[in-house]
Amino acid sequence: MPTVKLILEYDGTAYAGWQRQLDQPTIQQAVETAIEAVTQVRVPVIGAGRTDAGVHAWGQVASFRIEREMTPLEWTRALNARLPEAISVRAAEIMPDTFHARHRATGKLYEYRILNRPERPALERHFCWHVYKPLDDAAMNQAALALVGRHDCSSFETQPTENEDPVCHVQRLAVFRQGDLVRIEIYADRFLKQMVRSIVGTLVEVGLGKRTPESFAAVLAARDRAAAGKTAPPQGLFLVRVDY
Amino acid sequence: MPTVKLILEYDGTAYAGWQRQLDQPTIQQAVETAIEAVTQVRVPVIGAGRTDAGVHAWGQVASFRIEREMTPLEWTRALNARLPEAISVRAAEIMPDTFHARHRATGKLYEYRILNRPERPALERHFCWHVYKPLDDAAMNQAALALVGRHDCSSFETQPTENEDPVCHVQRLAVFRQGDLVRIEIYADRFLKQMVRSIVGTLVEVGLGKRTPESFAAVLAARDRAAAGKTAPPQGLFLVRVDY
Repeated sequence: MPTVKLILEYDGTAYAGWQRQLDQPTIQQAVETAIEAVTQVRVPVIGAGRTDAGVHAWGQVASFRIEREMTPLEWTRALNARLPEAISVRAAEIMPDTFHARHRATGKLYEYRILNRPERPALERHFCWHVYKPLDDAAMNQAALALVGRHDCSSFETQPTENEDPVCHVQRLAVFRQGDLVRIEIYADRFLKQMVRSIVGTLVEVGLGKRTPESFAAVLAARDRAAAGKTAPPQGLFLVRVDY
Repeated sequence: MPTVKLILEYDGTAYAGWQRQLDQPTIQQAVETAIEAVTQVRVPVIGAGRTDAGVHAWGQVASFRIEREMTPLEWTRALNARLPEAISVRAAEIMPDTFHARHRATGKLYEYRILNRPERPALERHFCWHVYKPLDDAAMNQAALALVGRHDCSSFETQPTENEDPVCHVQRLAVFRQGDLVRIEIYADRFLKQMVRSIVGTLVEVGLGKRTPESFAAVLAARDRAAAGKTAPPQGLFLVRVDY
């Protein structure tokens, strides 16, 4: 039975996140519905990351197994003809049976965008967090260094689950400023629940001078969500790429 | 009576353009309504450019005269508290009585964004024109050269009005590619109706090989809208800046 891999782009604004829910529109459900419209078969679709409500993707990866012989181009075109306009298939690939979008992922790249200016955004309002006080991005970058490496990241996990391994290998965490835009890139082998948003929220408190860059290491060492800052809002977050 | 200058950013997706209409929401009307909510005075607001339905702005300029003494910061904050979320005041300035957003403008910069890839856009669907066949941006740039200078631009004017001067001084027309994104920048002292969109539509026909770069000069010389290509769709167009 062929396993199909999809690379998905989506605007998460109007969706209650990736994961299927009973009473709200989700990305997973929209993709499953499109596959069913194409094939008349209902199959479960697995996503590499369970993005939250309002979070976007340039390159989410999804996989499913289905009794249907179609080429990657046929999958891309057929699904794009049926998916809602806020969701697009960038590419499809036929994979070995052992492929699994979540279990086989070796790394994910997220980007978080902050609009840092006094006036509120208009054009980018669904695609950034508006922080109106000036951010010290150099201090944020300095704080970020403490997180690079292999660490227990429990301090940045919302609603920890008992049996989950809290150790993540953060290979990259960098803060860039381009005019009013402050971009945060984070690459890790795995992410805990709302980890990027908790890290960003804490980095912003550093950028506003509410915490010192040096205190960031203590937040990490505390292994306690209460030690970290607020969770940044979802609309600034983009799942950029998933590696296998 | 103070004259106030506003720099406006807006997402034109849900608006029927700049200019006030009886039965549809427009940017001009939204700004006038916000001023009235702040001051209890209804005044006409003049825009530097009458952007079409679906066209966006990073830096539209508007002006109005009003019997009210307020600082630029007070205007910015009061209007941003009352404007719809798709419209934002970037800055305000108190100007001499002779200032007029349209008559005093000496130049305007527009940007047009094309997403050039086979798969349709999701995240950028309201902010680009999707051209799925590959564009030869070098050919487009070569064609664009013919337009730089002072020319009768009637070939790129929709619905010409009899008494209007059709001569525009195009100081810059350049095509850039950044991956899938093809950006066209155009700066001129003045623009005729739908001029940018007609130029972009014609350049895209060059980029697709339907016209030669050399034929662009003949299109301009014809002074006839029928000689040019189709009008590009509005959602790729941004009014970036207005100079005085």
